[in-house]
Amino acid sequence: MTRVDDLPLREELRGQTAYGAPQLDVPVRLNTNENPYPLPEPLVARIAERVAEAARGLNRYPDRDAVELRTELAAYLSRTAGHAVGTGQVWAANGSNEIIQQLLQAFGGPGRTAIGFEPSYSMHALISRGTGTGWISGPRNPDFTVDVAAAVREIAERRPHVVFVCSPNNPTGTAVEAETVVALYDAAQAARPSLVVVDEAYGEFSHHPSLLPLIEGRPNLVVTRTMSKAFGAAGLRLGYLAADPAVVEAVQLVRLPYHLSSVTQATALAALEYTDTLLGYVAQLKRERDRVVQSLRACGYDVVDSDANFVQFGRFADSHAAWQAILDHGVLVRDNGVPGWLRVSAGTPEENDAFLTAAESVRKAFDAAGALAHGEPTATGAAEPAPPAHDIQHTSTAEESA
Amino acid sequence: MTRVDDLPLREELRGQTAYGAPQLDVPVRLNTNENPYPLPEPLVARIAERVAEAARGLNRYPDRDAVELRTELAAYLSRTAGHAVGTGQVWAANGSNEIIQQLLQAFGGPGRTAIGFEPSYSMHALISRGTGTGWISGPRNPDFTVDVAAAVREIAERRPHVVFVCSPNNPTGTAVEAETVVALYDAAQAARPSLVVVDEAYGEFSHHPSLLPLIEGRPNLVVTRTMSKAFGAAGLRLGYLAADPAVVEAVQLVRLPYHLSSVTQATALAALEYTDTLLGYVAQLKRERDRVVQSLRACGYDVVDSDANFVQFGRFADSHAAWQAILDHGVLVRDNGVPGWLRVSAGTPEENDAFLTAAESVRKAFDAAGALAHGEPTATGAAEPAPPAHDIQHTSTAEESA
Repeated sequence: MTRVDDLPLREELRGQTAYGAPQLDVPVRLNTNENPYPLPEPLVARIAERVAEAARGLNRYPDRDAVELRTELAAYLSRTAGHAVGTGQVWAANGSNEIIQQLLQAFGGPGRTAIGFEPSYSMHALISRGTGTGWISGPRNPDFTVDVAAAVREIAERRPHVVFVCSPNNPTGTAVEAETVVALYDAAQAARPSLVVVDEAYGEFSHHPSLLPLIEGRPNLVVTRTMSKAFGAAGLRLGYLAADPAVVEAVQLVRLPYHLSSVTQATALAALEYTDTLLGYVAQLKRERDRVVQSLRACGYDVVDSDANFVQFGRFADSHAAWQAILDHGVLVRDNGVPGWLRVSAGTPEENDAFLTAAESVRKAFDAAGALAHGEPTATGAAEPAPPAHDIQHTSTAEESA
Repeated sequence: MTRVDDLPLREELRGQTAYGAPQLDVPVRLNTNENPYPLPEPLVARIAERVAEAARGLNRYPDRDAVELRTELAAYLSRTAGHAVGTGQVWAANGSNEIIQQLLQAFGGPGRTAIGFEPSYSMHALISRGTGTGWISGPRNPDFTVDVAAAVREIAERRPHVVFVCSPNNPTGTAVEAETVVALYDAAQAARPSLVVVDEAYGEFSHHPSLLPLIEGRPNLVVTRTMSKAFGAAGLRLGYLAADPAVVEAVQLVRLPYHLSSVTQATALAALEYTDTLLGYVAQLKRERDRVVQSLRACGYDVVDSDANFVQFGRFADSHAAWQAILDHGVLVRDNGVPGWLRVSAGTPEENDAFLTAAESVRKAFDAAGALAHGEPTATGAAEPAPPAHDIQHTSTAEESA
């Protein structure tokens, strides 16, 4: 039998294992930040209708520039994100992962570097490496906010070509202030200039307005979005960006021709017809997210303020043991490898009840055993030992690829 | 207004324009090797049904390993390509372009090189460059077959990490003999070893059996396929590969997580249920392709033997002028930048009649004007001036991305 390492594989891939945690078959799965609400049946019917229409022309290549879809995405952003954008300012791809990959192919790549402020969405680092872009792990404050002074200093010293800012941040849920983005952007322009990518995959769940208006007058600022979460369409793989039209032209230089299928375009267009209904689910999830934060705090947990559809809570001397203890109650949460912390997605009220019951029970058991860590929350977990490199932990945030 | 070159773009992208020829609005379009037959209505209904089913779970991530789809693709290959393969030997992605990109990310990339024998499918070179892989343009014989001795010599000397063999070759239609592939594979293994990719995007249209059985005992040999042509599904973007299971494991190290959407998987599965119907269209297209070859020869053209759903014909002192003359008759063919030659896709009988009428008329006009080239066909067009670098020519084969 041939093993992977017998193949003429690139050296840096040798010994690696494929990303992706096993999906465990448990009653309540709150580990991948999926939207728990299935699409409403009228939308399912509309998708079938639009896909059938597209299927009648499936022997032809799709619109490689996805103009109709980009027009509708632009209209959605203009209506909901506080800033009017046109079709030429929007680009769409197979998930925001492909958007990130295209941005890195155009603005990163061999001989260039990208920076992110960690812990953050792990695909920023992984896709950087996958495109040959050097990765710089930037700092955060102990409360998981961006340490602006340290970040500006790091940008000035390291002069990265691409700067990632995730807001709300995954896995911590932390929103980034507009002033912070402006400070990072100014530092990045002074240093090189470089491209600044604001990842708003969870933007619709935030208490704060979108950072989209910041693209005005900042041609090197990009905001990325996804339909995976707010539109309840993780299975659709539809990510997009908004930026200066020149950025859209730039990614068109590197995108694979006809990257976005006719059926994907048709399905996304159908979902966009149901924006108001789907944003109703978002409002419900925001209320549930806030309830989970409050209940966990009432129960004695440390909880990071969340602007996303998930909540980071702790702290645990051994977060993997805590993860397992919660799983033993039939609830799957996520150990993102942030020492001392776990992350739970906001589910339906019933799912959240099940999680909160489990969390309370685990809390009591851990309290009795003295297994909860105390003291100030830390971003880097200097106070705790790093968790064992379980596959689940190592690969965790790759799971909820936006 | 910001221009692309004002952005912090990679140096090698500066001054480039996006790939992709304009689609002209003319009565008969035979320029992108699309299958002219729309999917039958029962299949359209089945797609709607399966997509609706998938849409009910669209809030969840897709099966990131697409196991059901890969199982059906393996069954299809086992039944039609002369060699039994299992699910673990098959991988699927958004078009064979993404398959090629994943293979190059795993086996090519910075510091490595790939070779193809040109003229051939231009995306091999373009995706190589896009992944930082150095590109080596290998030779062909004047009749567009692979010059085995020269190719083996080139592989021994240049020691590429990836070898592309396109069979049937695009844009020439030329099939590659199994012995040739074996000779190239052996040379590539002796040189390094390297990965050999046999691109069978047009395999179903060949007079010859598939080269798939060659993967047996050759762990570094990959056969790529697509549903774009034989399944009449260019709009679906479904490419796949068959190889040793270790190769599938290798591409899983570099693929973006959840790259293939639930709707794409559902649509492809529906199409596979209609394999026999769709292969009936392939049989019809093969007959039409043979008729086009014979009719063009009867009309006095040089025609390259074709095993694909398109035909390369010539020769022209000025192929762009010939392209325009045929377009003036309402028929759009393709100038792939192969000096002296044009390429026409096999269409419906009516479309082919329209093309043949145009071709005959142009032939007469050019004969009268002495504008047809004579002498031996050449692969590299040494005898003719290179055509002007029109967008349409430059980007031509990127169009029919498999």
